[in-house]
Amino acid sequence: MTSSSAKWEVRAELPIHYEIEETLDLLSVDNPTLLGSVDRAGTGATQLVLVDTTIDRLYGDRLRAYLEYHRVRYHLMPLPSAEEQKTIDLVLAVASAMNEVKAFRVRNPPIAIGGGVMLDIVGLAASLYRRGIPYIRVPTTLLGLVDVSVAAKTGVNFEGFRNRLGSYSPPLRTLIDRSFLATLPRRQLRNGMGEIFKMALIKDVRLFGLLERYGAALIEGRFQDAAPPGGTAAGGGPPARVGSNVADEVIGRAIQGMVEELQPNLWEKKLERSVDYGHSFSPLLEMRALPELYHGEAVALDCVFSAFLAEHRGFLEPEDVHRVVACARSLGLPVWHPLFCDPDALGEALADTVRHRNGDQNLPVMAAIGSARFLNDVTPAEIEAAAAAMAELAPVGAR
Amino acid sequence: MTSSSAKWEVRAELPIHYEIEETLDLLSVDNPTLLGSVDRAGTGATQLVLVDTTIDRLYGDRLRAYLEYHRVRYHLMPLPSAEEQKTIDLVLAVASAMNEVKAFRVRNPPIAIGGGVMLDIVGLAASLYRRGIPYIRVPTTLLGLVDVSVAAKTGVNFEGFRNRLGSYSPPLRTLIDRSFLATLPRRQLRNGMGEIFKMALIKDVRLFGLLERYGAALIEGRFQDAAPPGGTAAGGGPPARVGSNVADEVIGRAIQGMVEELQPNLWEKKLERSVDYGHSFSPLLEMRALPELYHGEAVALDCVFSAFLAEHRGFLEPEDVHRVVACARSLGLPVWHPLFCDPDALGEALADTVRHRNGDQNLPVMAAIGSARFLNDVTPAEIEAAAAAMAELAPVGAR
Repeated sequence: MTSSSAKWEVRAELPIHYEIEETLDLLSVDNPTLLGSVDRAGTGATQLVLVDTTIDRLYGDRLRAYLEYHRVRYHLMPLPSAEEQKTIDLVLAVASAMNEVKAFRVRNPPIAIGGGVMLDIVGLAASLYRRGIPYIRVPTTLLGLVDVSVAAKTGVNFEGFRNRLGSYSPPLRTLIDRSFLATLPRRQLRNGMGEIFKMALIKDVRLFGLLERYGAALIEGRFQDAAPPGGTAAGGGPPARVGSNVADEVIGRAIQGMVEELQPNLWEKKLERSVDYGHSFSPLLEMRALPELYHGEAVALDCVFSAFLAEHRGFLEPEDVHRVVACARSLGLPVWHPLFCDPDALGEALADTVRHRNGDQNLPVMAAIGSARFLNDVTPAEIEAAAAAMAELAPVGAR
Repeated sequence: MTSSSAKWEVRAELPIHYEIEETLDLLSVDNPTLLGSVDRAGTGATQLVLVDTTIDRLYGDRLRAYLEYHRVRYHLMPLPSAEEQKTIDLVLAVASAMNEVKAFRVRNPPIAIGGGVMLDIVGLAASLYRRGIPYIRVPTTLLGLVDVSVAAKTGVNFEGFRNRLGSYSPPLRTLIDRSFLATLPRRQLRNGMGEIFKMALIKDVRLFGLLERYGAALIEGRFQDAAPPGGTAAGGGPPARVGSNVADEVIGRAIQGMVEELQPNLWEKKLERSVDYGHSFSPLLEMRALPELYHGEAVALDCVFSAFLAEHRGFLEPEDVHRVVACARSLGLPVWHPLFCDPDALGEALADTVRHRNGDQNLPVMAAIGSARFLNDVTPAEIEAAAAAMAELAPVGAR
């Protein structure tokens, strides 16, 4: 049968374009930004607005007033935002709400306002619904502002693995309003600092300096304009009068760093990713430790652990590692955890990451403060040595 | 705060390339095609192979022998392939199996062998797992060979809506082996003919002629080389001696038509799609009628119904519609169903399709046999008239 060799090929290119846009006081009725991408003419559709339960409690009244002022027919759905609830069940609940409001394919994109967990849930639901509808994302946590804001990824945890199910489906727009940080608990600010810290270590030595000098004061002042009363910088610097310029620079540099790293490799076809720093051992260990560790805390632990690996290879001097540890501490981030001192757990975590990186370690480590390189031959003995070094950081009672 | 207007943009392009490749006797141990994209060197991973339960029953022994001959460590997972079981639960069961075999990101793509339903399920699981891993697809039904084979889509039904959740994620390769059709029940062959019929009506008048002349005989002979004993062509032509050249041409033209229509619009950014012919009213009505109608049967009903709409507009002559109906009948496809005579159900179905097409009808109708045009102003009265015309086709007892 001659035709048994027939062959067809399909080639196409999907162009992607999305925006991350700063705005101030998003929920002020005279700020039109929130509804800027919603076509409200004649669809008769109900606008789906998803908020995390904390945002609903703190900003729900303002949000409802905003929508009513603009005469939007809306359905407001609160969602939890804890890592343990980042499940496919909630994705299906959101998809069900999309059915209920009879969402159109493009015209009335759902709006999600909240922390990274619920943004990932809504993003995955939007990417699955009708095989993908646009959505609008408003991160309200520091982690959301500097990390989720740029990422194209969505995801949920599955069978004890972090983000094991998900998609690459960036929102139409991400709106950034750091005034939401005014009500964010300090631990959530430190959580976001974990990702900023990561970016500083592998890419941005100036950002590292800003964190050393102003990090603690920024957390104290919640990244708002007013200087924190009596805030002091780490490292014995002058008392910090941290204004909006420093807050903007820290957030801006973190976002800019993410844009530069993600844009050329949005679908992760290249599995050498420096932004995976802090994300090699932590994904499995964070899941194992739930609900103890926040994501940024687990990332910071991995950053410190991996700094010991780099020191062991001679890439970092002991003083560099000391600065890394001191900076993490000044940001209120953990620098020690029993799971990161357990070579078996670390080995298991790395094995899963190797599968995720298609059989290679592709392990980003610091080449210096502010730059990264990759290792593919880290041995169990090196992991043991780094685990032992981290154990030295344990509080006296825990050793 | 001057920086409140800061804005970042991310632009990227995702290149997509996939192949549809004909092969003969895929499960013969000296045919290397099936394992052509599996890197079995050194990953230590178990190859996941998913088959539908019918394929397992008919070809399971040959498949296992093939894998054992090639010394593949495999996990074979049977999946149902009925439309009612096209659910997110089965997607999660497949994802769970991917976890169990510890699938790598790229190296050992799962292989799915079976009907369209299970291929859609596995495709969605692969697109979600680690945010997307490659997979290999072997359609074994006629519908799968001519329609699923080219599509980039995956999907599951949700809350009574067909393919309401899904993704655009083409497999790495689709392998086509029409010898699987030798064991396919006749009704499944007619089911596949529904999509070929659709393609003929809107794009390929020569294909329509082939269906009129040889369609019934192809079904009788199950698209295999040997001529069916005593098969007769529709329309009173000469007794059909239908060889592999006709079978190949019919399958080939259907695939080629799909490639031409899908390639420039793979992600359906353009919502005017002629291949949506037969898929405007049927999606909801097929779900309502489950398990009574197969997909291709529902599509054929929609094709006939929409031909009446075109006749009403004067695009088709009564003789054209007569040929359309006669051809459908010769293929053993239904031309009448109570739901397609119910203006309320038809209106509801169209309303959901309009939401899917972002507020427009974009209704493909035949402009002639073998070409399409679009309508955006079909009225309830026209739907009522077409429903009445279809009611005329009811068997006498059902009127």
